Parts: sequence; structure tokens; C-alpha cells
Amino acid sequence: MIIVLKRGTSEAQVQKINERLNEEGFKVHLSQGVEKIIVGAIGDRSRLEALDLEAIPWVEKVVPILAPYKLVSREFQSENTIIKIGEHEIGGEEIHVMAGPCSVESRSQILETAHAVKEAGATFLRGGAFKPRTSPYAFQGLEEEGLKLLAEAREETGLLVVTEVVDVRDVELVAHYTDILQIGARNMQNFILLKEVAKTNRPVLLKRGPSATLEEWMMAAEYIMDGGNYQVMFCERGIRTFENYTRNTLDLSMVPALHSLSHLPVIVDPSHGTGRWNLVPSMAKAAVAAGADGIIVEVHPNPEKAVSDGKQSLTVPNFTTMMDELKKLADALGRPVKGAR
Amino acid sequence: MIIVLKRGTSEAQVQKINERLNEEGFKVHLSQGVEKIIVGAIGDRSRLEALDLEAIPWVEKVVPILAPYKLVSREFQSENTIIKIGEHEIGGEEIHVMAGPCSVESRSQILETAHAVKEAGATFLRGGAFKPRTSPYAFQGLEEEGLKLLAEAREETGLLVVTEVVDVRDVELVAHYTDILQIGARNMQNFILLKEVAKTNRPVLLKRGPSATLEEWMMAAEYIMDGGNYQVMFCERGIRTFENYTRNTLDLSMVPALHSLSHLPVIVDPSHGTGRWNLVPSMAKAAVAAGADGIIVEVHPNPEKAVSDGKQSLTVPNFTTMMDELKKLADALGRPVKGAR
Amino acid sequence: MIIVLKRGTSEAQVQKINERLNEEGFKVHLSQGVEKIIVGAIGDRSRLEALDLEAIPWVEKVVPILAPYKLVSREFQSENTIIKIGEHEIGGEEIHVMAGPCSVESRSQILETAHAVKEAGATFLRGGAFKPRTSPYAFQGLEEEGLKLLAEAREETGLLVVTEVVDVRDVELVAHYTDILQIGARNMQNFILLKEVAKTNRPVLLKRGPSATLEEWMMAAEYIMDGGNYQVMFCERGIRTFENYTRNTLDLSMVPALHSLSHLPVIVDPSHGTGRWNLVPSMAKAAVAAGADGIIVEVHPNPEKAVSDGKQSLTVPNFTTMMDELKKLADALGRPVKGAR
Amino acid sequence: MIIVLKRGTSEAQVQKINERLNEEGFKVHLSQGVEKIIVGAIGDRSRLEALDLEAIPWVEKVVPILAPYKLVSREFQSENTIIKIGEHEIGGEEIHVMAGPCSVESRSQILETAHAVKEAGATFLRGGAFKPRTSPYAFQGLEEEGLKLLAEAREETGLLVVTEVVDVRDVELVAHYTDILQIGARNMQNFILLKEVAKTNRPVLLKRGPSATLEEWMMAAEYIMDGGNYQVMFCERGIRTFENYTRNTLDLSMVPALHSLSHLPVIVDPSHGTGRWNLVPSMAKAAVAAGADGIIVEVHPNPEKAVSDGKQSLTVPNFTTMMDELKKLADALGRPVKGAR
Repeated sequence: MIIVLKRGTSEAQVQKINERLNEEGFKVHLSQGVEKIIVGAIGDRSRLEALDLEAIPWVEKVVPILAPYKLVSREFQSENTIIKIGEHEIGGEEIHVMAGPCSVESRSQILETAHAVKEAGATFLRGGAFKPRTSPYAFQGLEEEGLKLLAEAREETGLLVVTEVVDVRDVELVAHYTDILQIGARNMQNFILLKEVAKTNRPVLLKRGPSATLEEWMMAAEYIMDGGNYQVMFCERGIRTFENYTRNTLDLSMVPALHSLSHLPVIVDPSHGTGRWNLVPSMAKAAVAAGADGIIVEVHPNPEKAVSDGKQSLTVPNFTTMMDELKKLADALGRPVKGAR
Repeated sequence: MIIVLKRGTSEAQVQKINERLNEEGFKVHLSQGVEKIIVGAIGDRSRLEALDLEAIPWVEKVVPILAPYKLVSREFQSENTIIKIGEHEIGGEEIHVMAGPCSVESRSQILETAHAVKEAGATFLRGGAFKPRTSPYAFQGLEEEGLKLLAEAREETGLLVVTEVVDVRDVELVAHYTDILQIGARNMQNFILLKEVAKTNRPVLLKRGPSATLEEWMMAAEYIMDGGNYQVMFCERGIRTFENYTRNTLDLSMVPALHSLSHLPVIVDPSHGTGRWNLVPSMAKAAVAAGADGIIVEVHPNPEKAVSDGKQSLTVPNFTTMMDELKKLADALGRPVKGAR
Repeated sequence: MIIVLKRGTSEAQVQKINERLNEEGFKVHLSQGVEKIIVGAIGDRSRLEALDLEAIPWVEKVVPILAPYKLVSREFQSENTIIKIGEHEIGGEEIHVMAGPCSVESRSQILETAHAVKEAGATFLRGGAFKPRTSPYAFQGLEEEGLKLLAEAREETGLLVVTEVVDVRDVELVAHYTDILQIGARNMQNFILLKEVAKTNRPVLLKRGPSATLEEWMMAAEYIMDGGNYQVMFCERGIRTFENYTRNTLDLSMVPALHSLSHLPVIVDPSHGTGRWNLVPSMAKAAVAAGADGIIVEVHPNPEKAVSDGKQSLTVPNFTTMMDELKKLADALGRPVKGAR
Repeated sequence: MIIVLKRGTSEAQVQKINERLNEEGFKVHLSQGVEKIIVGAIGDRSRLEALDLEAIPWVEKVVPILAPYKLVSREFQSENTIIKIGEHEIGGEEIHVMAGPCSVESRSQILETAHAVKEAGATFLRGGAFKPRTSPYAFQGLEEEGLKLLAEAREETGLLVVTEVVDVRDVELVAHYTDILQIGARNMQNFILLKEVAKTNRPVLLKRGPSATLEEWMMAAEYIMDGGNYQVMFCERGIRTFENYTRNTLDLSMVPALHSLSHLPVIVDPSHGTGRWNLVPSMAKAAVAAGADGIIVEVHPNPEKAVSDGKQSLTVPNFTTMMDELKKLADALGRPVKGAR
């Protein structure tokens, strides 16, 4: 940690900082620059968080040297984490496509979609049973009934299931039915929920919060790993910016950035990332070209009758075309799209 | 609702939209512009959410006419909501100052702070017992012990208490100890938690999420009111922008905007809004000048030893000076700062 | 244009709006909804800009129906604009790679780079002679000397040249030396400069402003086309957001969005878009997968000695590797990378 | 400057950095932390800009210690800059109100407005003669004719004039007619224009760019001061964020932040800052409470007939009421509103 002192800091004031750092077990190096005094503090990373030196009036700024995350870091584990689910591996060579409706609406809707996306080459079925909705008057999901329908669709098609959990009291229930637990964007910093999914043995798909920095996102993953669950994958789904032609701004640079900083797999959600179905295929291809380990997309047999997110859902024919293009692209990059025709 | 169709939409396609709207019980007006066809749909506001007409390929855009919120709206209730807590009224003429440390750290710390802020003119004591922290390695709060210390401080000083609840399973516990339940910024769209605090009879301080629009924030309040708890106050605490000299960008325009659109009180938090103690007094004054019904600020007897947020905490002398200035300012605006000397 | 009136607007007030619209030559349709009155105004798009109906107290909001741009729109011209420069075509099947240093620093630097990027498959040489720099103390470019060095490099290698113009008084000079005139991000809304480059017969590379919406960007292109120069290409180079791990947030969704709304070519700049050389190759591939007509990247023979932007510059070997990967990818998409080995 | 090296950097690599820094005249301190090597470089601030050490692969990050600005800094000049214009002083005790229409539209309009705002207590007349407009089809200003009308209004009322210059070729012309040269938000980083206004002896009102950080804004002022013109005042007018209920997000925290970092005066523009006339009076008061040295607001005798920005313009009666409230508020803060009744 580097502490820059304000111009005109007195000897006595420097001494006080020195003492405070020594008290906390840090070794201190002083360095007198042309205009400012700089204090270097060396010590245990875990104690840094507790120090709030910028509260001292003669401290200009504090610059952390070490990243605040540890378990998620590639410095901690240099090889990629590969998450094995059934016969699938996420984070290795294979690219996986997770597809399905925003919400589970009915038995026929989810089964029809499951069969269609399976045929087109998806390996996972997505679908929300518990829906966090901006409005209290909007459809809130079929809840346990929805989970059962997802399980039935898995039974029928062999697709594995990814679905969101929103309530700490439901973690066990949802974990019972699903293969991957999804933490939604709005819950990325719901630390209570992170601690709870950390206690399960289910892989976790951790969506990025709409205003989360890369570091905060990695810290959210750190919560889950620190709680004992090492099977975490990141999911970039767009951030909130001033541009509102798209629903969010899909930040694909995070794909190579995460791969460089962390060993965990990275999935991309171009449906929420753009909010417009006609942009989804291009951005799915871009995600794979950027190095994503998988994509998650919304597909609905009848988007204009969807109870949520129809605007960003692909029809089955559009999804099928996209899968064919993805396969060609992935082949050129030397990665197989698992399940693709 | 207005639906704009793409250029070149056929008669048959227009007809399909017509039918879909009639099916859902809407009355339809067609209007042929110079270049585009516009469809006006009139009907029950509650059914609008379910329609996802932008999923139809020949729809260019859908423009909602009615606001999605109802109970929070000044159109629903034209007079200000005044929240009575003990002998205090929030949302009326009185301006209230809520002050205290970021976290409850110890008995002596919270009691010392409580006495000091009481003396300077605060009416509410703030302090976190459950802390949502970005890092799993950071101090997470004293939990129930912290709540008891807050209650003891109330007993001793007569200050009322505002503290955050982060876990649905703790709502009852926290409500037992506190006078105002705080929903933190990161939980503004934790709808599960909103529904739970809606079931209590405690007033709720609803912080704005760092990337929440005005409308989303009002919808979060709508969740609480829809759940039966009408005692909601908004708390502006800054949004996340590209500017990072300040921790957040304090969006004071929300104060007059909320007062124009809603009947609920508005509180401002200049501590989180700026993240720098030396900017807090100016922004507290600005908040009151903008029409805020109260402010909530961090005060610590010894900021450089605080376990969290020391950088943005006022010392007791600085807080006292600020209170004197606030009082003068509020007097000029014809509003009393309740409790001020 | 749709005008929504506030609840409680009187007959006389509605009448006033009616009159104002008639005065300006608009036909008016009134529509009485359940809660609000809606006024539809039909008429000449060019007069809309002059009306400022939201200034009327009983107007709640005004919703434009028609896009404010015309010449850049795909509704105006349905086939792609293909810009022919020498033997190259931008906006057709070919993908072009523009490469070179941030700044022209010396004869040897620009010639060495030009030969290297030509060999690796670039068709255009980029390099700044006039540099807009945040600090007045930073290197401001070699100016005309730099332009001459670029011209010499073109002579030697056959590469065409793209370089930025920052001063209206230099437009003629820069146009004399360059094949493409670049409008930098900070000048995207320097309308005076846009009008000046519109008078030249040089193709224009229009970078997106760091806080420009898609619509504002298209309107900037409209300025150039309205001034008589139809050879405009967009260049996405990232927007400013809260995320600062990357220098900007590269908004690749704009590629398919622009292709859907406009007939003009789209180039992507992953160097400024990320600000980190190690992310550039992944994002260049992603750009091509998203449908970009070309990319522009910074290459420096010795990045750690570059006078500007070394952090985001590729070395020649890294650029060469990237080109090989781009070629494979583009092949899979059925598009040739013009010039690639 | 602090340079943090990546874990695993070799002795030879450290040596290379050492040499590069020595070459450039820096003294070097090495510091071996628990996990990383840190290099401190001490030397001439003006050479720092030229070094681009982050381009070196084994450099993790570079942390500048000194601010990049100098002349604008309070470290350079500790007392406030007071700009004297006629009998007025900006930056001292007096608060100044600059008021007038967005655009000069006609002789009668500007004279009527000038008399009205003078009577209500304004000391400066604002009004645009050259208008930077998003659309090429929008009204672009009366140009020199507009400047003459402003001069006539000054003659008649005694108000001083502030107006925008957008073209380097017009700087002399505009400076001839105006008392303060305004640099508009979109031109904040038009460095060519900054250098040109630096050559005049007119005070400059430097608006903040919609996506400019505090530091970039200060650097823009540094350009003007470095060019020889020390009479610069900052003007906060809102930044672009995701919130679009307001036209911009007025970032009032910049007022105390600038006052702490710089000696230059700070003006606030609540009209562009909010884009809604009904929020303007509250935010004008908030600006003064935050410590602003003046405000600049749009006033139009007939906002619904304004050719631009009517939506955010105050009527004369609303402006007069606001002035009365401002005066009371400023009195309470011990500052006179110059010119107020």
C-alpha cells in the first residue's frame, strides 16, 4: 500500500502515520519526492481492509498495490477451472450454449422450447421460475411449479438446467431441481444470498451487476469461493450506461480481461446485453470470438406472446440459424460447440 | 400506449396487432402519419406489463403513456405523506438530521457518538449492525449485539434509531430494535426483501441503487406500498458514473423531481454521495436548499480509526459546525431543523 | 409526434396546443385515453425541431415518432454505401485493417511501422500528426512534418493513409496528404469541423464521441452528408462508463445496430476501446465477428518508447499473429481480409 | 510516480526499467513488498507525460503521485482568483446571476429579456449567437447579427454579456462584442479553440464536457492558463449518466471539490444541468448553498415559442421569484447576490 501525504505535512504528522501502521503490524518505508512524501506499507493483505487512512486529514490518497481478491485470481491458480456437469465441461475447450425462455410460463411452452433448442444444439435449458421484476404488478414466476416443469424438460430432453434463485430461503429448493444456480444481476452484491449458494454443491452462474466494476464482480465470486464453493462462472450481461438504444451495454472486453485475471469460466448473455433480438446473433458470435466459454440466450417459440422479455427473445428458426453460424466460427477458432449439429 | 409501426407494414400486419390488442381488452385507434402508422391502445394499465409488442418484427417501438407506478405518485395522493415517528414528523416542515457511525463498533463508540450528535442537534442515530461489504474479508458488523447497543444508545439519549436490514430472515429482529428500517443501495431491487419489510409497521428508508433510474426507484417504493406499508421515504445517496473523484455522484436534482412526482419524503446522504468528509457539509447544505426533508450523515469520534468509511465520516466538531450552518440556512428557507440548538 | 398532456388539462389548454400546431402547419389528432389526453401531430419533419412544446406547462412529454436523421438512414438508402479508395472498397465484402502508431514520431519510426504492418496484411496506415492531448504539456504532434512522413510511407509501401484533422484551418492541408480524414472522438460534435470536412472530397472516418448516443453519432454523420460529402464511415472506439479497468467500454453492439439503421460502413478501434494491448486481439476478432467492415489498431515497433498510447499498442509480432487469426475468422464468415497473407 | 511490477518479474527486467528511468533523468527507489516489487521514480513532473511504462509487459500498473495540472491548482496559488469585469468581481464574496435566452432570436426578444432579468437582479446577460446544435437542420444562431443585438442590450441595460464562441476563426470577433467568452460543453476538449481564447484578454467561462472528469476539466483550464489567460471560471452544467429523467446529471459536488483543489471561480448552470424549468429554482439554490460563485440560467419571455431549449427556460415571473429566494439564501450564508433587489 502506498500512502501519499499532502504537501506541507509535518514531521510529527508523518510520525503519527508511521505509528499507526506499525501498530497494525506493517513495515514502513518513507520516500521523500520532489514535492510530496510517500509512505510505503508492507504487510498482511488481510489487514489492509481495516485501515482507513484516507480519513486522516494530511493523507492525500491511498493506493492499494495488491488486488483485494485472492481465490478467484490467476495468481492463486494458474490453470483454468473446468466445471464438470454431467458429461459437459465448462471452461475447457468446449463452448456451451444455454437457451430457453425468460420465464417458464407453462408445461407446453417449456417442453416445446426445450426440444427445439436441444435439436438446434443447446446443452443447457434456461428458464426463470422466480422472476425479479421491476414492477410489483408484473408476472413474478411460476415458482416451485416452474422448477418442476424445468426438471420434466430435463428428463425428456437430456438438457441440463440453469435457473435463478432470488431468495435465501429457497436456495435448497432451487438447488434440488437445477444443475446450475444462477445469481441474477440485481443480486450480484446480495452477499447474504452469495453466502447461501456457497454452501451448496451446485455450480453457480454469477451475473454481473448492472453497475458492478470488474473488481466488484470478482469480489462477489470471491464470496462464493470463500464460502467453500469453487464452481463459479462469470456471466457478462451488459452494464448500465448512457446509451439506451440497447437495453444494456454488453461489455465484451470483460471476456479477455477476466481470462487474464482469473481462472474461472466466462459466459456471455447477449439477450440482456442488447435487449433486441435482431442484435443477438451478431453479439453471440462476437462473444465467442472474444473467447467466451459459452453463451446464454433467450429463445421463445412465440416471442410476441411471451410474458416477459419477448423483445429480446429469438424465435426457434432464428436460434437455429445462429447456432449454425456459431459452429462455423468456433470451428475456425479451434473450439467445438458442444451439442451442435 | 402508443405503438409505432415500421415503414412498409402491411394492412394484414396492422390487423394482427389490432386483434392482439382487442384480445387483451384494449381499445385501438389507428393513425396514419406521413411516413409511419401509429397505433394508440387504450385500456387497463395493469395489463400493459404483460404485453410485449416490441417482440413483433414490424413494431418499431412502443411508447408507454402512463407511468408504471401508482401508489407512490402524486397523482394518487396530492398531499405530502408525513411520517410520524415518536414526536417527530418526516415529510412536513421539520428537517431531520440522522447521524452516527457507518458501523456500530463498540459500546463506547456508539454511546459517545450518540451523545455527541444529539447535543449537536441530530434527532436520529444511524449505525450499521449488519454490513454489506464488497469484500468477504471485511468487517461484517456486530449483528444482534450491534442492534442492542443501538437500542441502549436510544435509551440513553432519546435519539431514534435507523439501521439497515440485509437478510429477509432478520427483518423481524431488526424491526424489533429500530425505528426506521433502512434498505441499502445494493438491495434496492432485492424485491424479496422489499416484500418482507412491507409486512412490518416500521417506516422504511429506501436508498437509491447506484444504477437505479428515478422510475425504478419509485417502483421499488411501489413494492413496499403495494405490500401494505405506506411509510416510505426515499434516500438519495449518489449514483455510479464515470466521475470517480467522488465515490458516487450525488444526484440532488432528484430531490425536486421526487417532490414533484411523489408525495413521499426525501432524505439525502451526502456521506456516501461524495465519499469525502470535506465535501459533506457543502453538500448537506445544498441538499437542504434543494428541498430535502432530512439528511443522513456519517459521524465518527475518531474517523481514522473507524473500521469502515472513515474517509467520509465527519468528526464531532465538524458535524457541530455543519449543524450550525444548516440551521441558519433552513431558517432562511422557513423550515426548522428539528433538534438543532 | 405524440404530445401527452398532464392529467387535468382543460379544454381551453388543449385548444391552445391545437392552435400552435396548426399555426406551424401540422395536422392534429386528439385522443382521449382513460387518464390522459394524447395529441398526435402530423406534418413536415423539418419543422419539428423548432417546436419546443415541452415548455408548455400542461404538456407532460413529447414523443418524436420519426428519427431526426435522414441521409444516413437505411430508410433513405437501402443498399450499403461502398467507399472506393484506390483499389480498395470499404463497406462491401472486404474487411480492411488500418494500423500504425498513435503518433508519427520520426521518419524511421513511421517507415519501419509502415513496412511491418503492410507485410502483416494492413491496407491503411494510421498515424497522428496533429494530436489532441489532455495535457498542454504533452507532445502535440509533428504537424505538417508528420503529414509529409505519412505521405512518404505511402509512397514507399503502397499503404493508404488515415490521419486526424483537429483544426478547421488545417482541413485543406490534411486533405492534401491523406486518403481518409479522421474526426477524433473529442471532435465528433465539433460541428464547425464537420461542416468543413464536408466540403472536401475525402472519405471521413467519424469516431464516436465518448459520451455520444447512437442517435447523436448518426446526426454528426448527417452533418457531413448534409454538407455534401457522402463518404462517411463510423468508427466505434468505446464510450465512457464507470468501468475503468479498460480505458473505455468498447460498445460492439453498435456494429449490428448501425448496420441495421444505416447504410454506411462501420470500423472498430479496439486499441482506444480497451486501452490495453493484451485485450486488443480478442476484441479485434470480436469486432469482425460482430460484422465490422474494418478495424483500426495501434502498432508500434517499440511500444515502451512510444510518446503516446504505448500501453495500448501492439508490437509487430503480436500484430502479425492477430492478423493471421483475423484472416481465419473472416474466412469462416465468408469475408476476405483485404491484403492479408 | 510509483510503478508496480507483476509477480515473477526477474532481476534483469527490473534492471531494464531502472535504466529507462535513469535515461529520462529520474531517481529510482526499489521496494520489495511481500508479493510485488514496487519502483518509485522521482523527478521532473513535465517529463512524466512522455513515459509510457505500462506498455512494458512486466509492469502491472503505474500510479502517478503528482497531479498533472499546475497553474489551476491551489497548491500553485493559495488565494482565490477574483476576476474583475467592469464593476463586478467573480470569485470573491459577491454571487453573480447570468441570465437570458438560449439563443438570441430577435431584437425585441433579447431587449425584452435583458430589461426583465436586469430588473430581477441579474448582472450578466447570456444568449447564444453561434449555436452548436445536434441536428444540421436546427437553427444555428443569428451569428454576428446576434452579437450586435447583445451589444445593444448591454448598452441599454448596463448588463455585461456572456456568449459562446464555437469557431477558432471567430474568436476575435466574439471577443470584440462580449465581456466573457463561453466555451461550450462540447468544446471543452477542443484544444485548438482553448489555445485561441487563451490569446485574448477576455475572461473565459469553461463549461464542463458531458463526459469530462474533474481532472480533464482542470486540464482544459490549464490549457487556457498555459496560453497566457489566467481569467478562467469553471461552469458545472451536468454530466451524462444513465439517468435521463433530467437532461444531464448536475454534479454539484464539483463546487466544493473545485474550491478545494483550485483557486478559480465556479459557476453553475442548472438549466442545462436539469433540462426542466421546474427543477431549476431548487437547483439554483442548491448551487449557491454548495458554494457556487454564480449561476447561469436560461430565461425566455415566452418559453413555449423559444427556438431552442424552451423546456428548460424560466419565464420572467418564475425567474423573479427565484431571485428573491436566492437572495434570502445567500444572505443567510453571508454572501450578497450582486444586483439583487
